Amino acid sequence: MSDYDVLCIGNAIVDIIARCDESFLAENGIIKGAMNLIDAERAELLYSRMGPAIEASGGSAGNTAAGIASFGGRAAYFGKVCDDHLGGVYAHDIRAQGVAFDTRPLDGTPPTARSMIFVTPDGERSMNTYLGACVELGPEDVEAEKAKGAKVTYFEGYLWDPPLAKDAIRLTARHAHEAGREVAMTLSDSFCVDRYRGEFLDLMRSGTVDIIFSNESELKALYQTSSFEAGLDAIAKDCRLAVVTRSERGSVVIRGAEREIVQAIEIDALVDTTGAGDLYAAGFLYGYTSGRSLADCGRLGSLAAGLVIQQLGPRPMLSLKEAAEARGLA
Amino acid sequence: MSDYDVLCIGNAIVDIIARCDESFLAENGIIKGAMNLIDAERAELLYSRMGPAIEASGGSAGNTAAGIASFGGRAAYFGKVCDDHLGGVYAHDIRAQGVAFDTRPLDGTPPTARSMIFVTPDGERSMNTYLGACVELGPEDVEAEKAKGAKVTYFEGYLWDPPLAKDAIRLTARHAHEAGREVAMTLSDSFCVDRYRGEFLDLMRSGTVDIIFSNESELKALYQTSSFEAGLDAIAKDCRLAVVTRSERGSVVIRGAEREIVQAIEIDALVDTTGAGDLYAAGFLYGYTSGRSLADCGRLGSLAAGLVIQQLGPRPMLSLKEAAEARGLA
Repeated sequence: MSDYDVLCIGNAIVDIIARCDESFLAENGIIKGAMNLIDAERAELLYSRMGPAIEASGGSAGNTAAGIASFGGRAAYFGKVCDDHLGGVYAHDIRAQGVAFDTRPLDGTPPTARSMIFVTPDGERSMNTYLGACVELGPEDVEAEKAKGAKVTYFEGYLWDPPLAKDAIRLTARHAHEAGREVAMTLSDSFCVDRYRGEFLDLMRSGTVDIIFSNESELKALYQTSSFEAGLDAIAKDCRLAVVTRSERGSVVIRGAEREIVQAIEIDALVDTTGAGDLYAAGFLYGYTSGRSLADCGRLGSLAAGLVIQQLGPRPMLSLKEAAEARGLA
Repeated sequence: MSDYDVLCIGNAIVDIIARCDESFLAENGIIKGAMNLIDAERAELLYSRMGPAIEASGGSAGNTAAGIASFGGRAAYFGKVCDDHLGGVYAHDIRAQGVAFDTRPLDGTPPTARSMIFVTPDGERSMNTYLGACVELGPEDVEAEKAKGAKVTYFEGYLWDPPLAKDAIRLTARHAHEAGREVAMTLSDSFCVDRYRGEFLDLMRSGTVDIIFSNESELKALYQTSSFEAGLDAIAKDCRLAVVTRSERGSVVIRGAEREIVQAIEIDALVDTTGAGDLYAAGFLYGYTSGRSLADCGRLGSLAAGLVIQQLGPRPMLSLKEAAEARGLA
């Protein structure tokens, strides 16, 4: 018995998305492909230099929750918004997708987090995140019943940036494990791994986390190696189940001695990579909590990631359930 | 000498865009393909029933101004927002596109206008507009120097819905004509034509408007005829230049005895018709104010409309200047 398939926990962020030239990134000191943390003042400056934009709810684990719900899975979410316009948009969008979201919003300040995402002509996204209300997420926001009632609790490494969220994660993981559930984590970003390498390895080695999602550069950053194979060998020892994504080269799923190599899906046109990793995790976790084989979990991840990079914005605009059915993966 | 190619005047609206099934429209009493005016209470109700959405600046004439700027034309805009979050987004987006926008925002209430746009699987959009701050646009917002300095002043028929905007239009048209400029209008929507048929015909027949943009259903509504040809003959007599669009069947440009038939461009996939007419007008007016032939003006309109319906949202995400250059239309 479970109340939810997956409980996702993350920084609740509204994305502000615009296209830009390659030169814009250099001129503005933005690290390409990364999540750059910024303060309120720099957020204002960058917005003044940003082209016409669209706004869409985002946040890594929020995107994953939305993706799981789009597949037909039962998802819940913890994340902190402010009781302002963007907070209302965030809450509307995630609930309208069918995700249970009840974290109490902040009164007043700081405002709801936003990330200015610049998409270059090659489809790569470079994020500039002002964390705002996210810095207030803490242990008092942990809804114990949801943590105990979800088959998997999934959280983002980005939560080590705000001060209190890591305490919320440790508390949630305790509830989950006490109820016999599993805990999953994404490493989020190679620079994030650089910031918190020791703590992330400790989460894995202490058994706080059972399942790790990583991309190739995060894996290499975690073990400070240039060898993908060496990274795979290392992570296989450090967690029970590791899922490593490699963009167009597909993904590798590792559980003990078992390895599944999964292909990426073919795409017509790469529009915007925002949300690729988040939606891979959504597909994988939807499959995993539905009792599918690791290979099928990977295929569902590839499908969701491949679809989201063919649109602007991080949440699937089409039903992933229908997409999976159309490909015989439902 | 001119300061601007085109001054656009319209309801300044932020679009909230979501996909929906056909049945949703019927269940919620939304007229398909139309602009449905709603009050604040119904706006709240519909938003609570709306799926996950994206937000993008819109407004018919605002989209046209953005399109003209994207072609490299010099555009200005009059429209009323509130000094709230959405108003800030609106002002950012239109200025970031290079459009001169200096209309004083309202302090406090009513809030910035929003239109909930539901896009059905066939790509058709059905709009539900809460006018908010737009009802305050009036003659005091007319910047005489911009009206006198723009080659063409272009406004939307939708401005007959708020109470004072028509007075702003008449004043602007007077300034424009005194400076030897031209005035253009779009009929906006067949239901809008039904509401204001007599006044729209009077604007044309009195010479307040020199150029009319209409689609086929608006033309038929204007002359209460089921015959497209009869509509064309009638409008040819009522204004100096008429531009009539017919979706995938292209457009017809009429100036006295002269008629140009313009093809629509071929598209790969229809995503969302929002902004099609607005962007056709942008291409046409960019060509017109650059001294191009009527046929080329129509081709530029077809190009911009054909591109915007292959994306979600009403403003072009790619440079129309580059698109025109790539097709030898620059």
